[in-house]
Amino acid sequence: MKTPAQHAQLALLLEVAGTPKPGNVDRRRDLEDLWFEHFLAGAVAAMEGLELAERGAPIGDAFERAVEGMAEQGGGNTQFGSLLLLVPLVSAARPDLTPTAVERVVTETTVDDAAGFYRAFDHVDVFVDDPPDDMEALDVRRGSDAVPDLEERGLSLLDVLERSAPGDDVAREWTTGFERSFTAADRLAAASGPIVDRTAAVFLSLLAERPDTLVANRRGEDVAREVTERARDLHAREANETEPDAVEAFADDLVARGINPGTTADLVAAGLFVALESGGIEV
Amino acid sequence: MKTPAQHAQLALLLEVAGTPKPGNVDRRRDLEDLWFEHFLAGAVAAMEGLELAERGAPIGDAFERAVEGMAEQGGGNTQFGSLLLLVPLVSAARPDLTPTAVERVVTETTVDDAAGFYRAFDHVDVFVDDPPDDMEALDVRRGSDAVPDLEERGLSLLDVLERSAPGDDVAREWTTGFERSFTAADRLAAASGPIVDRTAAVFLSLLAERPDTLVANRRGEDVAREVTERARDLHAREANETEPDAVEAFADDLVARGINPGTTADLVAAGLFVALESGGIEV
Repeated sequence: MKTPAQHAQLALLLEVAGTPKPGNVDRRRDLEDLWFEHFLAGAVAAMEGLELAERGAPIGDAFERAVEGMAEQGGGNTQFGSLLLLVPLVSAARPDLTPTAVERVVTETTVDDAAGFYRAFDHVDVFVDDPPDDMEALDVRRGSDAVPDLEERGLSLLDVLERSAPGDDVAREWTTGFERSFTAADRLAAASGPIVDRTAAVFLSLLAERPDTLVANRRGEDVAREVTERARDLHAREANETEPDAVEAFADDLVARGINPGTTADLVAAGLFVALESGGIEV
Repeated sequence: MKTPAQHAQLALLLEVAGTPKPGNVDRRRDLEDLWFEHFLAGAVAAMEGLELAERGAPIGDAFERAVEGMAEQGGGNTQFGSLLLLVPLVSAARPDLTPTAVERVVTETTVDDAAGFYRAFDHVDVFVDDPPDDMEALDVRRGSDAVPDLEERGLSLLDVLERSAPGDDVAREWTTGFERSFTAADRLAAASGPIVDRTAAVFLSLLAERPDTLVANRRGEDVAREVTERARDLHAREANETEPDAVEAFADDLVARGINPGTTADLVAAGLFVALESGGIEV
């Protein structure tokens, strides 16, 4: 029987192995400077932070430690968003992982947890959009420099992520009881075959439902919508099973254009964890 | 800076990701009942045993724990041989991993370590050949049932593996100062490019040098020799770089025929660990 932290590490590994996961590093594809092996190393070294979460350490400390470890590889940001979902999920895993349990964990986050979240940005470059005007002092890209401003305003980590949720679907999970993470888990459990194939199918289903917010922030909402429309069309045709070449071509096209639906991949990692932890899937 | 146990876990992951690794599960290939995801789960759950080795626990206990964890997945034996190399290497890693240091570790193994090795066979089915006539009572397939006979004869784990070394190139490493593991590490360090590509090249170079003993035991020496001759020819032509399709075709052919040079893959995993630990490669 694996521990929650082990399930989270395995979720990170299964996520990157799932193929085709259009636009993302997967078992068959590397991006230009971001390779499969960087994700493997990220998963190995994120473990200390995940174990902190399992032992009930403050969410901010566990997240910062996980990111610090994850960043010890040459590819840059591999799993920041995934860890922002996995750390509260791991913390909520005992005795029973439910939306209510993880909502309680995020509701109980503090200003210190928010400070840990900001410090995590010191360890790795993460792509984020410009903050709203009234949040400039709290721009996450300031990293630990923003902590005094954060403390002055007295914002918890949930407060910070609520302000990021419009336009960031990882943050949005924190405000919705991890709705799409649990949905992804249900779909993984309902599918059949090797987990890496199920992962690819569930990735496509999520991408078909909502434009990826990382794509929207990096490349604009039109590109994000285009990607989701293509995903919706392929998903409606059950192309992963009926026309695998069409999905592979979609994947190759997104990689060639540098379009990376990384937020959707983060949600898949969270879904894998929930499904492993609940016994919905097993390897 | 990763710990020796983390480097060993990463070595297991990089080994299975290396492609093409003819006849083995790799980033592009699954075998019929043994899939990529089984190796990912094996690497996650072997970690407790690797951490025991890092902390200086007896080799037999650490190995048994690593195998017990590794076996908690549906594919059966994924990394038994790799762990039999990694556990003493991890134990020898501090302060400096050298052939002398790991020779000392294996020389100091005891009858209790041998008992741990036998108990490990209770956790997973491992393919092994029939023992010599005078070793029937010590057939490893008896698992823990053989421990009283083992204790009566007073054999250390090194004694047991010395008796297995003719015909088992994992056991042979124990008797040669892990010669081919260190050779593999040197080659990995001397190569260039992503580690998963170097892994494939070094796998081919090792397979070109000596017939794989798992293939010899399962399929006969003629088949093992044929595989090595084909590997030698491809390696001499530097086919991984100049004729990648020829190596892919070789890989597909071995998978189709169910020929699995797993011992060579174990040596690559050990080489990856030595190279990571010495700084010869980094991810």
